[in-house]
Amino acid sequence: GNGWQVIHEHHLEKDYKFKNFKEALAFTNRVGELAEQVNHHPDIYLAWGEVKLTLWTHKIDGLTESDFVFAAKADTVL
Amino acid sequence: GNGWQVIHEHHLEKDYKFKNFKEALAFTNRVGELAEQVNHHPDIYLAWGEVKLTLWTHKIDGLTESDFVFAAKADTVL
Repeated sequence: GNGWQVIHEHHLEKDYKFKNFKEALAFTNRVGELAEQVNHHPDIYLAWGEVKLTLWTHKIDGLTESDFVFAAKADTVL
Repeated sequence: GNGWQVIHEHHLEKDYKFKNFKEALAFTNRVGELAEQVNHHPDIYLAWGEVKLTLWTHKIDGLTESDFVFAAKADTVL
C-alpha cells in the first residue's frame, strides 16, 4: 500500500518519518502550500522527525474524492 | 493566566487561534525556528486557524525548566 489508512470510515491518515525536525518542518510547509493552492486543509501533527497528516471533508464530516486527491498530492511533495 | 496548562504533571499545552491557515502555518515556522535555535522541540498540531503546542523533556519524560522557558519564548513569537 501507499501508507494511507482509512480510519473509522471517516478520515485518512498517514505518518511520514524524517531524519530530523528541519526536514519534517520543510515537508509541513510543502503540504501547507498545497493545501492553500487547492483550499483543502489537512490537520498536520509535526514532531521531531515525524509528520502525521489527517484528512477529511469538514462539510460532510467524512471522506470525499478531494481527500483522496489531496492524499496522492501530498505524497508527491515528500 | 497565560494560557499554558500543565497536563498530568507531565507536559505543557497551549492552544493558539488564528484567522486562517496561513497565519497558523507562519506561527508554526516561527516556533520551529525557535526550537532549532534552542534544540528543544515541541509537538506541534497545526489545523486551519489553530496551533496547539505540547512541550515536555523527553530525556526525563516530564517537565523541566527548559519547557517553561520554551513556553514563554513561544508566546513572544506569536
